[in-house]
Order: sequence, then C-alpha cells, then structure tokens
Amino acid sequence: MVNEKYKKMLSNKSVIRQLAEYATARGKEIGYENVFDFSLGNPSVPCTKGYTEAVIRLHETKDPMEIHGYSPSPGNPYVRETVAKSLGQRFGLPYETKHIFMTSGAAGAIAHAVRLVTVPGDEVITFAPFFPEYGPYVNDTGAVLKVVPPRYEDFQINFEDFLEMLNPKVMAVLINTPNNPSGVVYTKETLARLGDILREKEKEYGHEIFLISDEPYREIIFDGKKYEYPSKYFENSISCYSFSKSLSLPGERIGYLAVNPAAKDGDILADMCTQISRGIGHNCPASTPQLAVAEVIEETSDISVYETNRNLLYDAFTRLGFTTVKPAGTFYILVKALEDDAIAFCQKAKDYDLIFVPADNFGAPGYFRVAYCIDTEKVKRAIPVLEKFVKEYY
Amino acid sequence: MVNEKYKKMLSNKSVIRQLAEYATARGKEIGYENVFDFSLGNPSVPCTKGYTEAVIRLHETKDPMEIHGYSPSPGNPYVRETVAKSLGQRFGLPYETKHIFMTSGAAGAIAHAVRLVTVPGDEVITFAPFFPEYGPYVNDTGAVLKVVPPRYEDFQINFEDFLEMLNPKVMAVLINTPNNPSGVVYTKETLARLGDILREKEKEYGHEIFLISDEPYREIIFDGKKYEYPSKYFENSISCYSFSKSLSLPGERIGYLAVNPAAKDGDILADMCTQISRGIGHNCPASTPQLAVAEVIEETSDISVYETNRNLLYDAFTRLGFTTVKPAGTFYILVKALEDDAIAFCQKAKDYDLIFVPADNFGAPGYFRVAYCIDTEKVKRAIPVLEKFVKEYY
Repeated sequence: MVNEKYKKMLSNKSVIRQLAEYATARGKEIGYENVFDFSLGNPSVPCTKGYTEAVIRLHETKDPMEIHGYSPSPGNPYVRETVAKSLGQRFGLPYETKHIFMTSGAAGAIAHAVRLVTVPGDEVITFAPFFPEYGPYVNDTGAVLKVVPPRYEDFQINFEDFLEMLNPKVMAVLINTPNNPSGVVYTKETLARLGDILREKEKEYGHEIFLISDEPYREIIFDGKKYEYPSKYFENSISCYSFSKSLSLPGERIGYLAVNPAAKDGDILADMCTQISRGIGHNCPASTPQLAVAEVIEETSDISVYETNRNLLYDAFTRLGFTTVKPAGTFYILVKALEDDAIAFCQKAKDYDLIFVPADNFGAPGYFRVAYCIDTEKVKRAIPVLEKFVKEYY
Repeated sequence: MVNEKYKKMLSNKSVIRQLAEYATARGKEIGYENVFDFSLGNPSVPCTKGYTEAVIRLHETKDPMEIHGYSPSPGNPYVRETVAKSLGQRFGLPYETKHIFMTSGAAGAIAHAVRLVTVPGDEVITFAPFFPEYGPYVNDTGAVLKVVPPRYEDFQINFEDFLEMLNPKVMAVLINTPNNPSGVVYTKETLARLGDILREKEKEYGHEIFLISDEPYREIIFDGKKYEYPSKYFENSISCYSFSKSLSLPGERIGYLAVNPAAKDGDILADMCTQISRGIGHNCPASTPQLAVAEVIEETSDISVYETNRNLLYDAFTRLGFTTVKPAGTFYILVKALEDDAIAFCQKAKDYDLIFVPADNFGAPGYFRVAYCIDTEKVKRAIPVLEKFVKEYY
C-alpha cells in the first residue's frame, strides 16, 4: 500500500527548491541574466582542471574493470588512505584508513553518523540557524532533532539555551561550521567551551554524546583565517565532509566521514557504517569520483570570488541599514528582513527579481538567506536594484 | 552513544564477502590464476567502448558546471526521459519522465521502493532462492521480510506455499528474475499466475500489494530467448534496475526505479522517492555516470562469455551427477551439494582451491552458488579439479 507519509511530504517541498524553480521559470521569461537568483547553494566556479584531467586520464589509461568494479563497502582503500593522510597533515589528528568511510556527499555522511550513535527515540541537538534538511536527515532515523535558538548578535552557539536543553536522552550534537545559512565560523572559544560541556555531561549522564560536525564549507574561509577543526576540541567526534563546495562537484555526490581516532570505538565506527549502508541502499559512492578526488585531494576551485561577493554584499546590506553578521566563510549571508515577516519580505523582493530565501525553516524567523555563489558582475548589478527595493520601506 | 545493533552486525558479515576475501588472500599465496574463485558477482567483461568514450567526451567538451552541478532530486530530466523512451520501446509500457527515478544501483532502487509502499510492521514476501541482502534492504525499513521456500524442481515460484503465506499485512512482493543465485528466469506462466493472484488478493484485502521487481540481470538471457518483463503482468509494479551487470559498471552505482504508469498513484510515486531520499542521505546518483549511461542506453558489454561458461559448467555438473536446474540467464548456477551440509561441502572444496558459496543464506540450504563471471579459460581449468574433488564422495 502506498506510504501516506511520503505522499503528504510532497506538498511540503523545500522552500529553496521552490524558489529556485521560480527563478528558472522567470529566467525563461525575461532572460536568466536579469534574475538576481540568490536562492541556491550551487557553486558558481568550475571544478579544477586537475579533476577533469584526472577523470580523463583514468578512463584513457586504466583497465575499465579496475575503475568501474565494486568498491569495498567502506570505499576504495587507496582513496581512504589518501584522505586519512591529508586530514592528518592538515589538522594533526592521527587518522588511519580505518577511520575513513567514503560517502555520497555530506548528506550521506550525516545519515550514517546519526544512525551510528543513536537509536530511535534518542535526541540530537543542533543550533539555529541551521540547514533545514537536518530535519529529515535526523528524524527519519527515528531520533528526534531539537533546535537551540540562535544567538543573534554573532550566530555563535547560544550556550545558555543549550545547557537547558541538554538531558540524558541527548546522544549527539550536530554542528555546521562554516555555517549555512549565516556564513559564520565557530571560534576557538566556542568550540573549546562546547567540548568542555560535552565532556562534563558525558560524565554526568554516564554515556557518550557524539559531536557530528558537518563541514562541507571548511575550505571557504575569508580574510586569510585558518579553519578551527571541531574534532580537535572533542574526542567523540565524527567529521562529515563533501567535495561539493570546495571542488565544485555537487552532482558527483562524493564525500566522507572521518572518525576521531580517540573516539569511543573509534577503530570500528567507520566499519560499522558498512552495516548501516546495507539497510539504506547506499553501498558506496561512485568509484570514478572517488579515484579522481584522491588525485587532487589538496586542490580547491578558485573560491576567491566568494570573498569578493561577500565584501560587496556585506557592505551594501549594512550601508542600507540592514542588520546582519559579517560572514567569515561559505557563500551565504543571513540578513534581517525589513519587516517582521521574512516570507512577505522575500515575496515583495521577487517583484524586483531579487530571489532571497526566507530563513524561517533555518530556525531564524524574520531573517532571509542570500546565497552569493553567482557571478560578481551580477552581484554588482543587483545592488542598485536592492537599493530601489529598500525604498519601499523608508 | 554507539548503536549496539550495528556493532553486533560486524561479526555477522556477508558470507560472500568473507569467501571473496579468502580467495584474494589465497591468490597472494599461490597466484590468483590458480584460485578457482566462483564467489563474487563482479562482471568479468569490461564496459563498452561507447561508455568510456562518452565519459571522456563529456569531460572534454562540456561546461564542468553543467556536468558536475546538482541534479534535480529525481535525477537528470534528460536521462530520465531517455530511460522512459528506451523502456517504452522495449517493453511496450507508456513510460514518461515522471515514472523514472534515478538511483544508486538496484540496491538504492529497492531501498526506495520498499519504503514507498510499506510502513513499519508491514510484510514483504520474497521467494527462495533469493539474494541475501534482501534481509537488510527490507528489515531496516521496519517492514518484515518473509521468504517462501524454493520449488526445487525448477526454481519457479512455489505458489502453494505463497498462497498460504499471503495475509492482509502483505503490502509488497519482491521478485528477482533472472534470479541470483539460481540463474532461472520466470516464465510467462509464472508471471501471469503471480499477477492474477495479486489482483485477486488486492480485492480480497482492500488494498494494493505492490510487485517490486529486481531485474539487474534482465539483459543476460541465454539461448536467444526474450525477457518476460514482470511489469507487463501486473499494474501495481515497480521495476528496479542497475547498469552494474549489463554495462559492467558495478562501482559507478547507477540504476533506476521505473513505476508502471498504470499503478495506483503511478504519476507521483517516483516524485515521492525524492522525499524518501531526504531521510536516507541518498540524494542522487552521481551526475556523470547518469549522463554517460544515457548516451549508451541500448548498449551492453560483450556478455556472450556468460552463456559459454554456463554451458561448460552445466554440462560438467550434470555429467558428474550433481542435481541442478539449467540457468536461463545471469552468471550464476545453483547446485545441490554432495552432502547435506553445503557449508561443509564448500569448506572441503577450498582444499582444491574451488571457491563456492553455500546457499544457506540464499534460502536454499544444501545447495551452493557458483558465480561464473570469470574467464572461460579458468572455467575450463576448473572442471578437472572439480572432477578430482568429486571423487572424495564416490
């Protein structure tokens, strides 16, 4: 019999996708170059030449059975070893092959990580503003997602409300730094305090509370800063990564999960993921993208455009009197709407062909998200249009 | 806290994988050419030149953002349309783009199909001999897999036991033709009778019973026969396909789910799969393999070697007094062991470096599976070794 739950979900599709579909349709009417589409987090710079050349070389020189054969369930061992070495060199943790599990992007990594450390009925805490897909990612495992309200002044962690929300049913905490939708990067102080609290509560409750760190924007950091790696601040950590943003490969669905070697059962958690895969039909990410990313593991696309766009938009929004927090990474900025109802605000912006996403679903009602992974030239053209739109409110 | 269920599963890994690992290790000792490894269903012929050329051409000529960008959740629309047209032409059902959902192989298709038409507690019936991974595929959704015992004389459906097992909690029936592990292909008569029974029971119970048809071996059919397409025989059908076997691309995790256009809610079932994906971290199969298989949708690898191997092995096993059913497709044959305990039999065969898989987990205790997707030359060398081994029993 047809499952009614999924049927009902059809009428409740992602707001982001609906807006992106609107932007595409509007583009067909007036030319897409005239639609200021800030809806989707689809990278706007190509993958590296190195990646393209690696795929071509693999197909021209390798035995097809070697590159297209079944991967072992946790991923190609050479690829896992390459990831472990690269992470070890960058962040100083003693990763080995056994700590790495290759996934279909960060979504796949989170789907495995949550199942790894919870059973149905357990609680998982995340912090607003947050990526709305965490709802289905967590709730469909049978665990329950709880959301700590935002700390509006800087979008760091709201520890007061977090401490109130913690209880013995919490088995995992899910963070995202650099953050979608705010672009904020958690500071050393935030991560250290989070680690201290988790260690203390683990003792109090008598069980581990795993830190699941979603970090696909890790490489997109501005102002020459260095990324603070969450796993350095807490032992029971699982890092979830995707090459979608750093290498501009979102369609290839390639990422990994890295278990902190010091974690409880750290030597077997990645292997346990293979058992989760059997039930969710994941098996492995595609073999060729696995092999090709391993060839260019230290490369990123030319991501400097995102910092340029951040500067232009942050300046414009503040100059025009908007309330916002300066993003330190990603390609998003979260801005307070000029009326209480951000949905109404974004609806009016559409009249100017400005496509913004209301952040109600991101746990920040009254705010809207601007995804600036678009051409700088278009960002520049959007600013006078924004100025015109703002005049409606003053 | 670490999930104990998945930890326990580690000690209960796939028998097939364990034997394959043994064969690889043994190969390192005596040379892999001396190990008669009939354990794994990994295609032994390369993908087509057309596929390799398509991948290279895509990377040499297309905009990287076009080929590596996010696919819409149900898959690339051009690829879905290509699949719909091809299926329509081959099997005469009026498929449209909306009936096709691109998946990570047949495993991903089954994972979605079961969730689509069951809720936890519902029953799904399958027929022995069956692919043992159906256990986790079905049980991890919360539904319960029930297995109808084999009809040993021809490995067609055992309708007597099936009729006894049917009850109002059965929401889906999962079949696999051509069959892994028997190589048997369901006849027109089998499929017609199955369809009649399902229609009758739907009426009796007042709800649909979906037929989920797992058909990755559809193209590997011997003796010039034509494939009987299960969906032709029953409206509420979902076909699950993979390019792993026909195009020798198991590592690329590319397949699809095709909803019979006449099915209940047939116009929305594929779309509903996108909602299931959100919870299981699937998203989409990789974009490049999607685009590349669409370029070669009517091609198959040179699969004639499997028929040659089938002939050699079927002749040898029957000549040596084994009980078996002649495979009409795939690259498997299921054979009765020469003692009651097939595990003991396969253990003894290892002394001759013959690697067979006991079929206890396939629902056929006392039988063993022979995967003959290996070089014909090795099959020929294996036969005298088999003869020598058999002398232990006579």
